[in-house]
Amino acid sequence: MSDKVRIALDAMGGDHGASVILPGAEISLTRHPDIEYLLFGNQALLEPLLAGLPRLKAVSKVVHTEVSIRMDDKPSQALRRGRWKSSMWLAIDAVKKHDADVVVSAGNTGALMAMARFNLKMIEGIERPAIAALWPTLKGESVVLDVGASIGADEGHLVNLAAMGSAMARVLFDIERPTVGLLNIGVEEIKGLEVVREAGRILREGQFPHFDYHGFVEGDDIGKGVVDVVVTEGFAGNIALKTAEGTARQFGQYLRSAMNRTLAASLGYLLARQAFRTLRDKMDPQKSNGGTFLGLNGVVIKSHGGADAEGIASAIDLGYDMVRYELLAKIGESMARDLLAMTTATATARQASGAAS
Amino acid sequence: MSDKVRIALDAMGGDHGASVILPGAEISLTRHPDIEYLLFGNQALLEPLLAGLPRLKAVSKVVHTEVSIRMDDKPSQALRRGRWKSSMWLAIDAVKKHDADVVVSAGNTGALMAMARFNLKMIEGIERPAIAALWPTLKGESVVLDVGASIGADEGHLVNLAAMGSAMARVLFDIERPTVGLLNIGVEEIKGLEVVREAGRILREGQFPHFDYHGFVEGDDIGKGVVDVVVTEGFAGNIALKTAEGTARQFGQYLRSAMNRTLAASLGYLLARQAFRTLRDKMDPQKSNGGTFLGLNGVVIKSHGGADAEGIASAIDLGYDMVRYELLAKIGESMARDLLAMTTATATARQASGAAS
Repeated sequence: MSDKVRIALDAMGGDHGASVILPGAEISLTRHPDIEYLLFGNQALLEPLLAGLPRLKAVSKVVHTEVSIRMDDKPSQALRRGRWKSSMWLAIDAVKKHDADVVVSAGNTGALMAMARFNLKMIEGIERPAIAALWPTLKGESVVLDVGASIGADEGHLVNLAAMGSAMARVLFDIERPTVGLLNIGVEEIKGLEVVREAGRILREGQFPHFDYHGFVEGDDIGKGVVDVVVTEGFAGNIALKTAEGTARQFGQYLRSAMNRTLAASLGYLLARQAFRTLRDKMDPQKSNGGTFLGLNGVVIKSHGGADAEGIASAIDLGYDMVRYELLAKIGESMARDLLAMTTATATARQASGAAS
Repeated sequence: MSDKVRIALDAMGGDHGASVILPGAEISLTRHPDIEYLLFGNQALLEPLLAGLPRLKAVSKVVHTEVSIRMDDKPSQALRRGRWKSSMWLAIDAVKKHDADVVVSAGNTGALMAMARFNLKMIEGIERPAIAALWPTLKGESVVLDVGASIGADEGHLVNLAAMGSAMARVLFDIERPTVGLLNIGVEEIKGLEVVREAGRILREGQFPHFDYHGFVEGDDIGKGVVDVVVTEGFAGNIALKTAEGTARQFGQYLRSAMNRTLAASLGYLLARQAFRTLRDKMDPQKSNGGTFLGLNGVVIKSHGGADAEGIASAIDLGYDMVRYELLAKIGESMARDLLAMTTATATARQASGAAS
C-alpha cells in the first residue's frame, strides 16, 4: 500500500450519478486528505463537475469510459454489456491490478456483485459472498450480514457468515472476541428454521478462537446492540435492514411534523435544535451508508443507489477505514483460523447428528 | 351475538401475567363499556386483583383453572399438559362453544396457535393459519402478514395471505379494494425468491375482485404506507416486525437522552412536551399491540408476551373491533370469493408456466 489511500470510484453509479458522487468524494476528502481518487466515468460529464470542485480535481485522475451499467440491468446483462469496458468493471479492475486499494460504487448491487466476483474471485474456503452492513445501535454499532448478497443459506454458509462478520467486527470495533448472534424468530431453542437451529448447534459446540457465540437474537435485539455481529440469510437480512431504515425515516417525519404543529412546539424545537441535530445524525441512514462485500479478494464497498453526497461520503469513509486499518488482510488471516475451527465443528456436529438419528 | 361484546381472556398468559392483564382489561373496559369478560385463570390469584378493580369485577366472571401454559412450553407439550383444562385452552373453547365472541391471550404464541388450530379448526380452503399485525405507517395503518405463524411459504400460501390480509384491511380500514404488495428484496422483477416471483405472477394475472395487486415492496415501503396489505412469509415477516419495533424504541431512547443533555434542550422539551407525547403515542409498539390469527373459525387475538397494561388494552380493543364490526364473518365471505379467483389464477398460471417451459 502506498502512503495514500487510493480509491477507485465508479462515478456513474447510483440514482443520481456523478452529480452527487463527486461532491460526496470531496466531502470524504476533507475528512481524509490522504485520499487519491481514480474516477471512472464519462469524461465529458465528469470534467465540468470537477471544474467546480478544485480540491477534488487536484487529487483525482479521470479514466474515461463509454459504458455505464444501468440500475435495472440484470447481472448477466451487465456482464455482457459492461465487462472490460464499463465504469463499474474498470473500477473493480483497478483493485485487481493494485492500481487502487478499494472500489466504491453506488451502482446496481447485483451487477457489482457479479462483476466483483467474476474479476476478484472468492477467498479460499468461502463459496458465496456476503454484504455486511454497519448498524447503529444503542451501544454503538454492530455488523449485520448478509443483507442481500444471496438468498437462502445452509448451515455452513451461516457459520461462514459468523466467521467473516466477526473478523470484520474484531478489526472495526477493536474487540478481541466479538459476540455473534443468529437472527431467528424466537429466543427459545424450539423456534425457527431448521438450518438456523443447525448453525446454532455448530456455533455452540465448535471452538471458535475469534468470537463468542451468544445464541439466537430477534429483530428487536439488533438495535439494542445485544451482540456485535448479527448473522442472517440475505433475504431476511435485507428486509430487516430496509425495514429499520424505513422506521427511522418514519420517526423523523413524525418528529418534524410534531415540532411544527404548535407555537410552543416550534419554540421548543428552536431551544433544543442542537439536540435534534445530534439525534438526526444518529438515525440518518445516510450516515451509516455503505455495505461491505465480504468473501472477495479485494475491498468492495457498495453505497445505496439513492444516497446523497453525504451518504456517498460515508461509503467512501468506510472504504478508507477498511484500507487504512488493513481490514481485508486481517479478515483473511482470522477467517482462515475460524474456518478451520468451523470445518472441525461442522464435521463433529454431523457425526453427532448422524449418531443421534 | 349478544348486545355485549363477550371477551374470553386468558388471564395467566404473558411475561407479567394477571397483574398487567387485569388492569389492561379495565383500561379497555373504560373505552368500551359494553364489554363482558370471561376471565380464565387461578381464582386465588385473580380474586385479590379483582378486588382492587371494582369496575372490571362487575362485568367479569372468573373461570377457575389449575393449569397455565408456560411461555417456554413447546406447542406439543402445551397440548399434552393443557388440553381441556388450561386457562388458554378454556378461553379458546369459550369461543368454540359461543360463550364468548373473541379470545385474547398474551401467552406463548406457538401454544396458542396449536390449541386454536386444534380446537377451532381452519376455515375451508385455508391450509395454514397466519398472524396479521396492524403496522403504523405515515399514511395511517397497514395490515402486515404473516408475522410468525408459520415458517416458509409456497406461492399458493402467499396468495392465500393476500386474500386474507386484504379482507381484513377491507373491513378494518373501510376501503373497497385495498392494495396488496409482496415483500421482496428489490422492486425489479429480477430479484427475490422464486416463490415470491411466482406468487407475484399469479396475483398480477389473476382477477381478484377484492384487492388491487400493487407489485413488490421493500422493507422501507412498509412504514411509508405504500400498500394497505403487505404479504410475506412468516420468518421474514416476524423479523421485519420486531426490527421495526426495536428501531422505534431505539429512536425513543435517543430522543430522551438528547433532550436531557443540555439545559436548552430540557427547556425545549418542556415547551414541546405535548408534541412529544403525540409522537410517543405514534411510535409506541404497545399502542398497536395485538396480532390477529387469520384462517381459523373464530377470532383469536395474540398480545405480545411482554405487553404492559396499555398494550393488553390495545389487544383487547382490537378484538373488540373485530367482533363489533363482524370482521370474521366479512373476512370469511370475501375470502371465499377471492379464493375462487385465486384457484382459477393459480391453475391458469400453472398452465402458462407449463406451456412456456
